[in-house]
Amino acid sequence: MQGYDASKDDLSIRLRRIEGQVRGIAQMVEQDRYCIDVLTQISAATKGLQSVALAMVDDHLRHCVADAVEKGGPGADQKLTEATAAVNCLLKT
Amino acid sequence: MQGYDASKDDLSIRLRRIEGQVRGIAQMVEQDRYCIDVLTQISAATKGLQSVALAMVDDHLRHCVADAVEKGGPGADQKLTEATAAVNCLLKT
Amino acid sequence: MQGYDASKDDLSIRLRRIEGQVRGIAQMVEQDRYCIDVLTQISAATKGLQSVALAMVDDHLRHCVADAVEKGGPGADQKLTEATAAVNCLLKT
Amino acid sequence: MQGYDASKDDLSIRLRRIEGQVRGIAQMVEQDRYCIDVLTQISAATKGLQSVALAMVDDHLRHCVADAVEKGGPGADQKLTEATAAVNCLLKT
Repeated sequence: MQGYDASKDDLSIRLRRIEGQVRGIAQMVEQDRYCIDVLTQISAATKGLQSVALAMVDDHLRHCVADAVEKGGPGADQKLTEATAAVNCLLKT
Repeated sequence: MQGYDASKDDLSIRLRRIEGQVRGIAQMVEQDRYCIDVLTQISAATKGLQSVALAMVDDHLRHCVADAVEKGGPGADQKLTEATAAVNCLLKT
Repeated sequence: MQGYDASKDDLSIRLRRIEGQVRGIAQMVEQDRYCIDVLTQISAATKGLQSVALAMVDDHLRHCVADAVEKGGPGADQKLTEATAAVNCLLKT
Repeated sequence: MQGYDASKDDLSIRLRRIEGQVRGIAQMVEQDRYCIDVLTQISAATKGLQSVALAMVDDHLRHCVADAVEKGGPGADQKLTEATAAVNCLLKT
Protein backbone atom coordinates (compact mmCIF):
# COMPACT_ATOMS: atom_id res chain seq x y z
CA MET A 1 0.00 0.00 0.00
CA GLN A 2 1.70 3.17 -1.17
CA GLY A 3 -1.00 5.59 -0.10
CA TYR A 4 -1.64 7.30 -3.42
CA ASP A 5 -4.10 4.73 -4.77
CA ALA A 6 -6.99 7.17 -4.64
CA SER A 7 -5.40 9.49 -7.18
CA LYS A 8 -3.29 6.87 -8.96
CA ASP A 9 -5.38 6.88 -12.14
CA ASP A 10 -5.36 10.65 -12.28
CA LEU A 11 -1.56 10.83 -11.84
CA SER A 12 -1.05 8.09 -14.41
CA ILE A 13 -3.19 9.92 -16.98
CA ARG A 14 -1.32 13.19 -16.35
CA LEU A 15 2.07 11.47 -16.72
CA ARG A 16 1.00 9.78 -19.97
CA ARG A 17 -0.03 13.20 -21.26
CA ILE A 18 3.37 14.68 -20.29
CA GLU A 19 5.08 11.71 -21.99
CA GLY A 20 3.19 12.68 -25.17
CA GLN A 21 4.20 16.33 -24.73
CA VAL A 22 7.89 15.39 -24.47
CA ARG A 23 7.56 13.17 -27.58
CA GLY A 24 6.02 16.18 -29.34
CA ILE A 25 8.93 18.39 -28.24
CA ALA A 26 11.44 15.87 -29.66
CA GLN A 27 9.53 15.99 -32.96
CA MET A 28 9.52 19.81 -32.92
CA VAL A 29 13.32 19.77 -32.56
CA GLU A 30 13.65 17.20 -35.34
CA GLN A 31 11.45 19.38 -37.59
CA ASP A 32 13.57 22.50 -36.90
CA ARG A 33 10.67 24.33 -35.28
CA TYR A 34 11.37 27.80 -33.92
CA CYS A 35 13.37 27.61 -30.67
CA ILE A 36 11.04 29.91 -28.72
CA ASP A 37 8.07 27.67 -29.56
CA VAL A 38 10.07 24.64 -28.38
CA LEU A 39 10.92 26.47 -25.14
CA THR A 40 7.24 27.23 -24.54
CA GLN A 41 6.43 23.52 -24.83
CA ILE A 42 9.35 22.54 -22.56
CA SER A 43 8.06 25.00 -20.00
CA ALA A 44 4.55 23.47 -20.20
CA ALA A 45 5.91 19.91 -19.77
CA THR A 46 8.07 21.02 -16.83
CA LYS A 47 5.04 22.64 -15.18
CA GLY A 48 3.13 19.40 -15.70
CA LEU A 49 5.88 17.40 -13.97
CA GLN A 50 6.07 19.88 -11.09
CA SER A 51 2.33 19.62 -10.63
CA VAL A 52 2.50 15.80 -10.46
CA ALA A 53 5.41 16.10 -8.01
CA LEU A 54 3.37 18.39 -5.79
CA ALA A 55 0.47 15.92 -5.82
CA MET A 56 2.95 13.18 -4.79
CA VAL A 57 4.31 15.32 -1.93
CA ASP A 58 0.75 15.99 -0.77
CA ASP A 59 -0.05 12.26 -0.87
CA HIS A 60 3.21 11.44 0.95
CA LEU A 61 2.32 13.89 3.72
CA ARG A 62 -1.31 12.79 4.01
CA HIS A 63 -0.59 9.05 3.96
CA CYS A 64 3.01 8.00 4.66
CA VAL A 65 3.80 10.83 7.09
CA ALA A 66 0.40 11.03 8.80
CA ASP A 67 0.31 7.22 9.28
CA ALA A 68 3.83 7.16 10.69
CA VAL A 69 3.13 10.10 13.04
CA GLU A 70 0.04 8.33 14.35
CA LYS A 71 2.07 5.16 15.00
CA GLY A 72 4.85 7.26 16.56
CA GLY A 73 8.44 6.13 17.07
CA PRO A 74 11.45 6.55 14.77
CA GLY A 75 9.36 5.77 11.65
CA ALA A 76 7.66 9.16 11.87
CA ASP A 77 10.96 10.97 12.02
CA GLN A 78 12.22 9.07 8.99
CA LYS A 79 9.11 9.86 6.92
CA LEU A 80 9.36 13.55 7.86
CA THR A 81 13.04 13.63 6.90
CA GLU A 82 12.15 12.03 3.57
CA ALA A 83 9.39 14.58 3.00
CA THR A 84 11.76 17.50 3.58
CA ALA A 85 14.42 15.87 1.38
CA ALA A 86 11.83 15.45 -1.38
CA VAL A 87 10.78 19.10 -1.14
CA ASN A 88 14.45 20.13 -1.21
CA CYS A 89 14.99 17.97 -4.28
CA LEU A 90 12.03 19.63 -6.05
CA LEU A 91 13.18 23.13 -5.13
CA LYS A 92 16.58 22.42 -6.69
CA THR A 93 15.11 21.44 -10.07
CA MET B 1 16.93 27.32 -40.72
CA GLN B 2 16.35 27.50 -37.01
CA GLY B 3 19.97 27.75 -35.95
CA TYR B 4 20.15 24.74 -33.69
CA ASP B 5 20.97 22.21 -36.43
CA ALA B 6 24.44 21.58 -35.10
CA SER B 7 23.12 20.19 -31.82
CA LYS B 8 19.77 18.98 -33.16
CA ASP B 9 20.65 15.31 -32.96
CA ASP B 10 21.98 15.69 -29.45
CA LEU B 11 18.84 17.53 -28.27
CA SER B 12 16.61 14.98 -29.97
CA ILE B 13 18.40 12.08 -28.24
CA ARG B 14 18.14 13.79 -24.86
CA LEU B 15 14.42 14.47 -25.34
CA ARG B 16 13.77 10.86 -26.40
CA ARG B 17 15.55 9.75 -23.21
CA ILE B 18 13.38 12.11 -21.10
CA GLU B 19 10.29 10.77 -22.89
CA GLY B 20 11.37 7.28 -21.74
CA GLN B 21 11.94 8.56 -18.20
CA VAL B 22 8.42 10.02 -18.04
CA ARG B 23 6.98 6.73 -19.37
CA GLY B 24 8.92 4.96 -16.62
CA ILE B 25 7.49 7.34 -14.01
CA ALA B 26 3.93 6.61 -15.21
CA GLN B 27 4.69 2.89 -14.82
CA MET B 28 6.10 3.45 -11.33
CA VAL B 29 2.86 5.17 -10.32
CA GLU B 30 0.79 2.38 -11.88
CA GLN B 31 2.86 -0.20 -9.96
CA ASP B 32 2.35 1.63 -6.63
CA ARG B 33 6.05 2.34 -6.23
CA TYR B 34 7.12 4.31 -3.16
CA CYS B 35 6.24 8.01 -3.56
CA ILE B 36 9.72 9.28 -2.66
CA ASP B 37 11.26 7.09 -5.39
CA VAL B 38 8.74 8.50 -7.87
CA LEU B 39 9.61 12.04 -6.77
CA THR B 40 13.33 11.35 -7.32
CA GLN B 41 12.59 10.29 -10.89
CA ILE B 42 10.33 13.28 -11.51
CA SER B 43 13.12 15.53 -10.29
CA ALA B 44 15.59 13.84 -12.69
CA ALA B 45 13.22 14.24 -15.67
CA THR B 46 12.59 17.89 -14.76
CA LYS B 47 16.34 18.54 -14.59
CA GLY B 48 16.69 16.91 -18.01
CA LEU B 49 14.05 19.22 -19.48
CA GLN B 50 15.63 22.29 -17.88
CA SER B 51 18.97 21.29 -19.33
CA VAL B 52 17.49 20.98 -22.85
CA ALA B 53 15.76 24.34 -22.33
CA LEU B 54 19.05 25.96 -21.40
CA ALA B 55 20.69 24.53 -24.53
CA MET B 56 17.82 25.99 -26.58
CA VAL B 57 18.24 29.43 -24.94
CA ASP B 58 21.97 29.28 -25.67
CA ASP B 59 21.29 28.40 -29.31
CA HIS B 60 18.67 31.14 -29.57
CA LEU B 61 21.18 33.70 -28.29
CA ARG B 62 24.07 32.48 -30.45
CA HIS B 63 22.06 32.19 -33.65
CA CYS B 64 18.71 33.99 -33.76
CA VAL B 65 19.75 36.92 -31.53
CA ALA B 66 23.34 37.26 -32.78
CA ASP B 67 22.18 37.15 -36.44
CA ALA B 68 19.47 39.73 -35.81
CA VAL B 69 21.86 42.03 -33.92
CA GLU B 70 24.34 41.86 -36.80
CA LYS B 71 21.59 42.76 -39.27
CA GLY B 72 20.39 45.51 -36.93
CA GLY B 73 16.97 47.16 -37.05
CA PRO B 74 13.77 46.21 -35.19
CA GLY B 75 14.39 42.47 -35.71
CA ALA B 76 17.20 42.50 -33.15
CA ASP B 77 14.98 44.10 -30.55
CA GLN B 78 12.26 41.52 -31.16
CA LYS B 79 14.67 38.59 -30.81
CA LEU B 80 16.08 40.05 -27.58
CA THR B 81 12.57 40.53 -26.18
CA GLU B 82 11.78 36.91 -27.07
CA ALA B 83 14.97 35.72 -25.38
CA THR B 84 14.12 37.54 -22.15
CA ALA B 85 10.53 36.28 -22.29
CA ALA B 86 11.83 32.72 -22.74
CA VAL B 87 14.15 33.05 -19.74
CA ASN B 88 11.26 34.48 -17.70
CA CYS B 89 9.09 31.57 -18.75
CA LEU B 90 11.77 29.08 -17.64
CA LEU B 91 12.29 30.85 -14.31
CA LYS B 92 8.58 30.55 -13.58
CA THR B 93 8.54 26.76 -14.01
CA MET C 1 4.30 28.78 20.35
CA GLN C 2 5.12 28.49 16.68
CA GLY C 3 7.24 25.37 16.86
CA TYR C 4 10.43 26.70 15.37
CA ASP C 5 11.89 28.08 18.62
CA ALA C 6 14.73 25.57 18.62
CA SER C 7 16.18 26.90 15.39
CA LYS C 8 14.83 30.45 15.70
CA ASP C 9 18.21 32.01 16.42
CA ASP C 10 19.81 30.17 13.54
CA LEU C 11 17.09 31.25 11.09
CA SER C 12 17.25 34.81 12.35
CA ILE C 13 21.04 34.94 11.84
CA ARG C 14 20.72 33.52 8.33
CA LEU C 15 18.02 36.05 7.41
CA ARG C 16 20.08 38.95 8.77
CA ARG C 17 22.96 37.73 6.58
CA ILE C 18 20.68 37.60 3.52
CA GLU C 19 19.42 41.10 4.37
CA GLY C 20 23.07 42.25 4.25
CA GLN C 21 23.59 40.42 0.95
CA VAL C 22 20.61 42.20 -0.63
CA ARG C 23 21.90 45.56 0.68
CA GLY C 24 25.24 44.71 -0.93
CA ILE C 25 23.51 43.90 -4.23
CA ALA C 26 21.72 47.29 -4.18
CA GLN C 27 25.11 48.95 -3.67
CA MET C 28 26.64 46.92 -6.51
CA VAL C 29 23.89 48.19 -8.84
CA GLU C 30 24.39 51.78 -7.62
CA GLN C 31 28.15 51.45 -8.28
CA ASP C 32 27.57 50.16 -11.83
CA ARG C 33 29.19 46.82 -11.09
CA TYR C 34 29.28 44.25 -13.90
CA CYS C 35 25.83 42.72 -14.43
CA ILE C 36 27.07 39.10 -14.33
CA ASP C 37 28.66 39.73 -10.90
CA VAL C 38 25.37 41.21 -9.69
CA LEU C 39 23.49 38.16 -11.02
CA THR C 40 25.86 35.83 -9.15
CA GLN C 41 25.09 37.64 -5.89
CA ILE C 42 21.33 37.63 -6.58
CA SER C 43 21.56 33.89 -7.16
CA ALA C 44 23.39 33.44 -3.82
CA ALA C 45 20.79 35.50 -1.92
CA THR C 46 17.95 33.58 -3.59
CA LYS C 47 19.56 30.28 -2.59
CA GLY C 48 19.86 31.58 0.97
CA LEU C 49 16.14 32.44 1.05
CA GLN C 50 15.19 29.04 -0.41
CA SER C 51 17.28 27.34 2.24
CA VAL C 52 15.53 29.25 5.04
CA ALA C 53 12.18 28.42 3.43
CA LEU C 54 13.06 24.73 3.39
CA ALA C 55 14.00 24.88 7.09
CA MET C 56 10.60 26.52 7.78
CA VAL C 57 8.77 23.80 5.83
CA ASP C 58 10.67 21.15 7.78
CA ASP C 59 9.75 22.83 11.06
CA HIS C 60 6.13 23.19 9.98
CA LEU C 61 5.97 19.47 9.19
CA ARG C 62 7.74 18.36 12.38
CA HIS C 63 5.79 20.62 14.72
CA CYS C 64 2.55 22.11 13.38
CA VAL C 65 1.64 19.11 11.19
CA ALA C 66 2.90 16.35 13.51
CA ASP C 67 1.13 17.92 16.52
CA ALA C 68 -2.12 18.30 14.60
CA VAL C 69 -1.95 14.73 13.26
CA GLU C 70 -1.43 13.42 16.80
CA LYS C 71 -4.46 15.37 18.01
CA GLY C 72 -6.44 14.21 14.97
CA GLY C 73 -9.61 15.85 13.65
CA PRO C 74 -10.00 18.56 11.02
CA GLY C 75 -6.97 20.49 12.35
CA ALA C 76 -4.59 17.88 10.90
CA ASP C 77 -6.17 18.17 7.48
CA GLN C 78 -5.88 21.95 7.56
CA LYS C 79 -2.19 21.86 8.53
CA LEU C 80 -1.46 19.34 5.77
CA THR C 81 -3.27 21.50 3.22
CA GLU C 82 -1.23 24.49 4.38
CA ALA C 83 2.00 22.49 4.08
CA THR C 84 1.21 21.48 0.50
CA ALA C 85 0.18 25.05 -0.35
CA ALA C 86 3.47 26.32 1.09
CA VAL C 87 5.48 23.82 -0.96
CA ASN C 88 3.50 24.83 -4.07
CA CYS C 89 4.20 28.48 -3.33
CA LEU C 90 7.94 27.76 -3.05
CA LEU C 91 8.00 25.72 -6.25
CA LYS C 92 6.44 28.62 -8.13
CA THR C 93 9.17 31.08 -7.11
CA MET D 1 29.73 51.85 -18.35
CA GLN D 2 27.84 48.74 -17.37
CA GLY D 3 24.86 49.20 -19.66
CA TYR D 4 22.11 49.17 -17.09
CA ASP D 5 22.30 52.89 -16.23
CA ALA D 6 18.89 53.62 -17.72
CA SER D 7 17.12 51.36 -15.24
CA LYS D 8 19.69 51.65 -12.42
CA ASP D 9 17.48 53.77 -10.18
CA ASP D 10 14.55 51.44 -10.68
CA LEU D 11 16.62 48.33 -9.86
CA SER D 12 18.14 50.05 -6.85
CA ILE D 13 14.69 50.98 -5.47
CA ARG D 14 13.43 47.43 -5.98
CA LEU D 15 16.47 45.95 -4.22
CA ARG D 16 16.10 48.37 -1.28
CA ARG D 17 12.47 47.24 -1.01
CA ILE D 18 13.53 43.57 -1.02
CA GLU D 19 16.16 44.36 1.62
CA GLY D 20 13.32 45.74 3.76
CA GLN D 21 11.22 42.65 3.10
CA VAL D 22 14.04 40.35 4.25
CA ARG D 23 14.52 42.49 7.39
CA GLY D 24 10.77 42.11 8.01
CA ILE D 25 11.04 38.33 7.60
CA ALA D 26 13.87 38.19 10.17
CA GLN D 27 11.63 40.13 12.58
CA MET D 28 8.70 37.78 11.89
CA VAL D 29 10.92 34.82 12.84
CA GLU D 30 12.15 36.62 15.97
CA GLN D 31 8.53 37.34 16.94
CA ASP D 32 7.50 33.67 16.50
CA ARG D 33 5.07 34.49 13.70
CA TYR D 34 3.25 31.58 12.10
CA CYS D 35 5.56 29.61 9.81
CA ILE D 36 3.18 29.66 6.82
CA ASP D 37 3.00 33.46 6.98
CA VAL D 38 6.81 33.60 7.07
CA LEU D 39 6.97 31.27 4.05
CA THR D 40 4.57 33.53 2.12
CA GLN D 41 6.87 36.49 2.73
CA ILE D 42 9.99 34.49 1.78
CA SER D 43 8.26 33.53 -1.45
CA ALA D 44 7.46 37.20 -2.17
CA ALA D 45 11.06 38.29 -1.52
CA THR D 46 12.39 35.46 -3.71
CA LYS D 47 10.05 36.50 -6.53
CA GLY D 48 11.31 40.06 -6.14
CA LEU D 49 14.93 38.90 -6.48
CA GLN D 50 14.10 36.74 -9.51
CA SER D 51 12.41 39.70 -11.15
CA VAL D 52 15.49 41.91 -10.61
CA ALA D 53 17.67 39.08 -11.96
CA LEU D 54 15.54 38.87 -15.08
CA ALA D 55 15.86 42.62 -15.60
CA MET D 56 19.65 42.24 -15.27
CA VAL D 57 19.71 39.39 -17.82
CA ASP D 58 17.65 41.52 -20.20
CA ASP D 59 20.04 44.45 -19.77
CA HIS D 60 23.05 42.16 -20.21
CA LEU D 61 21.62 40.87 -23.49
CA ARG D 62 20.58 44.29 -24.80
CA HIS D 63 23.83 46.04 -23.89
CA CYS D 64 26.83 43.82 -23.14
CA VAL D 65 25.90 41.06 -25.60
CA ALA D 66 24.48 43.26 -28.36
CA ASP D 67 27.51 45.60 -28.20
CA ALA D 68 29.94 42.69 -28.32
CA VAL D 69 28.10 41.03 -31.21
CA GLU D 70 28.22 44.30 -33.18
CA LYS D 71 31.97 44.55 -32.57
CA GLY D 72 32.40 40.87 -33.44
CA GLY D 73 35.40 38.74 -32.53
CA PRO D 74 35.95 36.54 -29.47
CA GLY D 75 34.36 39.12 -27.13
CA ALA D 76 30.90 38.33 -28.48
CA ASP D 77 31.35 34.64 -27.81
CA GLN D 78 32.50 35.34 -24.25
CA LYS D 79 29.50 37.58 -23.51
CA LEU D 80 27.12 34.97 -24.92
CA THR D 81 28.74 32.24 -22.80
CA GLU D 82 28.36 34.48 -19.73
CA ALA D 83 24.72 35.12 -20.56
CA THR D 84 23.96 31.41 -20.80
CA ALA D 85 25.92 30.73 -17.61
CA ALA D 86 23.91 33.43 -15.84
CA VAL D 87 20.61 31.95 -17.01
CA ASN D 88 21.80 28.50 -15.89
CA CYS D 89 22.73 29.93 -12.51
CA LEU D 90 19.25 31.49 -12.13
CA LEU D 91 17.50 28.27 -13.18
CA LYS D 92 19.37 26.37 -10.47
CA THR D 93 18.17 28.65 -7.68
